[in-house]
Amino acid sequence: MEFWGSSTRPWYPVNGEGQLIERIQRDVKLPRGSGIVLGIGDDCAIFRQRGSTEDLLFTTDLLVEDVHFRRATHRAADAGWKALARGLSDIAAMGGEPRFFLLSLAVARWADARWVDGFYRGLLRLAARAGATLVGGDVGRSDKVMCDIVVCGAVPRGRALRRDGARAGDAIYVSGRLGGSALGLSTGRGAAWRRHLRPEPRLALGRFLRERVRATGAMDLSDGISTDLRRFAAASKLAAEIEAPPQFAGASLEQALHGGEDYELLFTVPSRTKVPAEFEGVPLTRIGVMRRGRPGTVLLGDRPLPPLGFDHFR
Amino acid sequence: MEFWGSSTRPWYPVNGEGQLIERIQRDVKLPRGSGIVLGIGDDCAIFRQRGSTEDLLFTTDLLVEDVHFRRATHRAADAGWKALARGLSDIAAMGGEPRFFLLSLAVARWADARWVDGFYRGLLRLAARAGATLVGGDVGRSDKVMCDIVVCGAVPRGRALRRDGARAGDAIYVSGRLGGSALGLSTGRGAAWRRHLRPEPRLALGRFLRERVRATGAMDLSDGISTDLRRFAAASKLAAEIEAPPQFAGASLEQALHGGEDYELLFTVPSRTKVPAEFEGVPLTRIGVMRRGRPGTVLLGDRPLPPLGFDHFR
Repeated sequence: MEFWGSSTRPWYPVNGEGQLIERIQRDVKLPRGSGIVLGIGDDCAIFRQRGSTEDLLFTTDLLVEDVHFRRATHRAADAGWKALARGLSDIAAMGGEPRFFLLSLAVARWADARWVDGFYRGLLRLAARAGATLVGGDVGRSDKVMCDIVVCGAVPRGRALRRDGARAGDAIYVSGRLGGSALGLSTGRGAAWRRHLRPEPRLALGRFLRERVRATGAMDLSDGISTDLRRFAAASKLAAEIEAPPQFAGASLEQALHGGEDYELLFTVPSRTKVPAEFEGVPLTRIGVMRRGRPGTVLLGDRPLPPLGFDHFR
Repeated sequence: MEFWGSSTRPWYPVNGEGQLIERIQRDVKLPRGSGIVLGIGDDCAIFRQRGSTEDLLFTTDLLVEDVHFRRATHRAADAGWKALARGLSDIAAMGGEPRFFLLSLAVARWADARWVDGFYRGLLRLAARAGATLVGGDVGRSDKVMCDIVVCGAVPRGRALRRDGARAGDAIYVSGRLGGSALGLSTGRGAAWRRHLRPEPRLALGRFLRERVRATGAMDLSDGISTDLRRFAAASKLAAEIEAPPQFAGASLEQALHGGEDYELLFTVPSRTKVPAEFEGVPLTRIGVMRRGRPGTVLLGDRPLPPLGFDHFR
């Protein structure tokens, strides 16, 4: 889930309608006793069943032809992989373990049975790796291929890593090196292109951050850190000061700051927490600190960093 | 959820690919201890958390412009209402109570902020009536408006009404009068058109069937009884013999048999069960009996009833 988490700027281009999501958020009351711990505004919603020691996490993500993948450059199996990776990344961001998922798939006329077959092959391959089971969905027709994935994950009760958990003084970290997916999209080859095609949701890292590091907050980087950190800081009602994040080999600073679809994790820890330099080969880099200040403000060095990450409505 | 439940005929038009869904169903193993009680193939998937006295139901439904609604004839609020009604109807079919839902919405260029606002208004109006809370989702862009709704409901542990619960000799019932939505779609006016625009998910009836009537099986009628009863009978590994179902005022027998989107409930009860003639003003009509025979066979009188209901892939 992404745009639901955007409370810092208009998600809709028409003047005066920028507050639509916020209005919906305000209109939607979470009824007492409903078991809903967290609604609109984070990577996942959180639901708690009476008697259970675990909280359930729910996230939905759209994958749209010519927005998230292109017929000419992405194989069917890549599209299927990515559809699920997007949802799993949200579960990872909360430190969850995936349990099951549902898939709604609208099939375009051009997509023949072989394509659909390949799509499911890529999807189920990642599902098997992640231990997530496909339990249902819907299929239909449309002009372009479009799918929506719903993933359910679980965390021990009250332990989900949230966007609103960071405190002033917390150190800000990112996993991996940023800008790889944007670089790959522009060059169409090499390690960066493979990175774009087959993002790896950081599930093991998310659990490690929750269980061992005891991160105070986390989110996944799907739209570029300039945009995502702004959302994170706004949710925590703080400002963020960072230096340049680690760049994927060959990626520009612009790509590292504003490029989407890296699916790395952004997280915060108390200033004295020791964070290892890497986890299972993925570097963990301290890039800054959370400060009191106008909620959602992001400074790169001493300058404001504009949120130029991916936005469907710009 | 609809097409996932179709195991009786090809869901995909290309020869030799008709078994895709069945192959996926076969490929997808439900891991022991995963809590997944029921996967692909019914109105909802069923998930059971350790320690809980309730089972959770999950369903997803697509709503696609020019398939499920038209810009020229359906107001935004009608589209929003229908998007949620489709999911709630699946929860009703299992005798569940809705808890929460998520919505992914892909917005076309033509749909301005006012349209999106109206869409949410219709959606949230039905949500308030049904006691379902919007907890998250995703938004994006596409050429046509398309959305996917995910609804979570709950039933007491082990009590969900399923498609595979009917036994030979059980009486078959339907709620309401069929063909209204198809009639409304063809005439564009009157009670039938209102019925098409604002279907009423039979939530109270579903609970009544589970708690009081103790139905052996149920499903919702979204694609026409000729198609849906075939799926139901196939799931229960039985044949079905029916007479003409009650027709919506002005609807033809064809519309009552093959017209989609009535969102009434089909259910079965042991032959001696007394079923009231109506529930909260909605007639409950005995239309036939489940028999041993080729699974999925449906006879109308003494003739096979072909499944001519709505099918995206025909």
